[in-house]
Amino acid sequence: MQQDETQLRDGRIVRSEDPLNLEMPFERLDSFITPIESFYVRTHFPIPKIHRDEWWLHVEGEVEKPFAINYEELLELESRTIPATLECAGNNRNFLQPKVKGVQWGLGAVGTAQWTGVPLSILLDRAEVKPEAREVILEGADRGRLDDPKAPPGELKFARSIPVSKAHTDVLLAYKMNDADLPPQHGFPLRAIVPGWYAMASIKWLQRIIITDQPFTGYYQTMDYSYWRRRGDMADLAPLTEMQVKAEIAKPAQGKIVPANSNVRVHGAAWTSDGEITKVELSTDGGASWKEANLIDQAILNAWRLWEFEWCTPSKPGKQTLVARAIDSRGRTQPAERDPDRGTYMINHLLPISIEVR
Amino acid sequence: MQQDETQLRDGRIVRSEDPLNLEMPFERLDSFITPIESFYVRTHFPIPKIHRDEWWLHVEGEVEKPFAINYEELLELESRTIPATLECAGNNRNFLQPKVKGVQWGLGAVGTAQWTGVPLSILLDRAEVKPEAREVILEGADRGRLDDPKAPPGELKFARSIPVSKAHTDVLLAYKMNDADLPPQHGFPLRAIVPGWYAMASIKWLQRIIITDQPFTGYYQTMDYSYWRRRGDMADLAPLTEMQVKAEIAKPAQGKIVPANSNVRVHGAAWTSDGEITKVELSTDGGASWKEANLIDQAILNAWRLWEFEWCTPSKPGKQTLVARAIDSRGRTQPAERDPDRGTYMINHLLPISIEVR
Repeated sequence: MQQDETQLRDGRIVRSEDPLNLEMPFERLDSFITPIESFYVRTHFPIPKIHRDEWWLHVEGEVEKPFAINYEELLELESRTIPATLECAGNNRNFLQPKVKGVQWGLGAVGTAQWTGVPLSILLDRAEVKPEAREVILEGADRGRLDDPKAPPGELKFARSIPVSKAHTDVLLAYKMNDADLPPQHGFPLRAIVPGWYAMASIKWLQRIIITDQPFTGYYQTMDYSYWRRRGDMADLAPLTEMQVKAEIAKPAQGKIVPANSNVRVHGAAWTSDGEITKVELSTDGGASWKEANLIDQAILNAWRLWEFEWCTPSKPGKQTLVARAIDSRGRTQPAERDPDRGTYMINHLLPISIEVR
Repeated sequence: MQQDETQLRDGRIVRSEDPLNLEMPFERLDSFITPIESFYVRTHFPIPKIHRDEWWLHVEGEVEKPFAINYEELLELESRTIPATLECAGNNRNFLQPKVKGVQWGLGAVGTAQWTGVPLSILLDRAEVKPEAREVILEGADRGRLDDPKAPPGELKFARSIPVSKAHTDVLLAYKMNDADLPPQHGFPLRAIVPGWYAMASIKWLQRIIITDQPFTGYYQTMDYSYWRRRGDMADLAPLTEMQVKAEIAKPAQGKIVPANSNVRVHGAAWTSDGEITKVELSTDGGASWKEANLIDQAILNAWRLWEFEWCTPSKPGKQTLVARAIDSRGRTQPAERDPDRGTYMINHLLPISIEVR
């Protein structure tokens, strides 16, 4: 990773000011739940100022009974609380060589919170979705103009779609984060949580839900937040969806010094999508040999799993290269090399870290 | 239109050398059929050198009986000859203000030829297309690397899809143009003719036909050759398909001098898609008033219609602004203003032309 001059704000790395993008220094990881004040912040436009008494959520499109609901009514509906890990689709971008456009995230555009809210299925059932419905578009109140000749002219709203099947299964509309009201930076008054998917799908400042009978091909799932999916030797543009299996090392961090001939705790987190992390392996010799790390706590679907490893450091001083890799219950593991079809997203190849033993 | 230094090659305007893009000076229009030597040339990559004895066309994908056919066999199949107008989707781009990226076509990236070949439906029937088929991908032998970070990495082949319904109706695989063997610049040995669609769909140097059960989202119908289609206040990225209704003035051309108080023949061509040109109107006062032009010959579906107008020029010398507009059998006419959702394509708003009466 580029060792850039890092400016900190409230203990987070400022990746950009306008729009505001803050990253958690990943070496701060020390619990399953990420505190709000450490959680990374990803915005595309200025943060909408929304007053809860003036806010409405509209449900419309291919439904029998379109309706709007306000904040107070929403709070009266059946609620659920789930832990879910959110990872920015561009997390780890700072490790790519050559450099690519986009926010230069290191390791910390990822976090896990307890999300409390209303299952999206409850609102869909109330609206009576028509049988021909295929997708659910989630639209935020965040909007602006893009400096991209390929963007739609005029003001663009942040919006993304999910299949009706996913929308009915586990998508949550959250108004609480770690038992506090959702902060403005995280989508107050309401955001979607799309478990297992990269966080661009978990629309913040949610204001409209549109059910459609055809695939949505908006800017943020075609021109941006997309990748090339190979079909034979043809390349099809596809929207980003599921997070890729990944383990990250929190401590010791890149460039740190550890004592020779001693026991050092290596620890971090690992996550995947639509499956469980079943194994994390650590290499202390740059990938030549691997040993199994200890998985902490129970596996929870679509939440990260913390892990640790007791490293008996060598007696000789020198550079050591640590690499972690995760394997999930679907047998997926991290690739050694970067897949260029993924453009500037879905970065989950192995990331060696240099440590000095002294 | 920008009055640029125009370099001519074989009587055509050289818009770029590598890849080769040649335009017909539109004032040369004088017949329904455009001679090959005047016809515009549009290439994206170097022109493939294909020997007819080594060429095969493969038909594969969602079919019961995939097969390959060579040039000799193809010539033995039932053939048809149809006139069809091809227009580059970026024709008239040079008129856009502010300037946009792309080949700076004036009026002449359009032409009409007699195309002889095999209806695509004959090959589809032979392959026995499965019921779940939705699209037919046409792939050319032209290929190369693009200087676009959003393009798929590696070598890209030019390919485009059409719905199965269109493929079965009127798409021709042409090996003759104006009764001569298809020239290399126009796709030798075989090209598609997709009547009524912008010419990016009429794949040249055709080498493979892939039937698919899902929409094709390749580079040339998402990142390029696409536009923003509004659905309510949402913008959906959509591939370019049908040509838009348009009339162009061939003579007198922009900036020309005509005598005062005399009869001047104004003439040009008009075309549309999936309908007939029913009226062309001409304004000699910049759009304040309109008079009907005379349509020449019979209307032919998906081919242009020539028109003429006898202009009694004013007795006073001065600038006059000519504008032509076409109306088709579906009631469509040309918009006065440019629609910015169309990006750098589908340019059919009214284009006034300045003439000096002396």
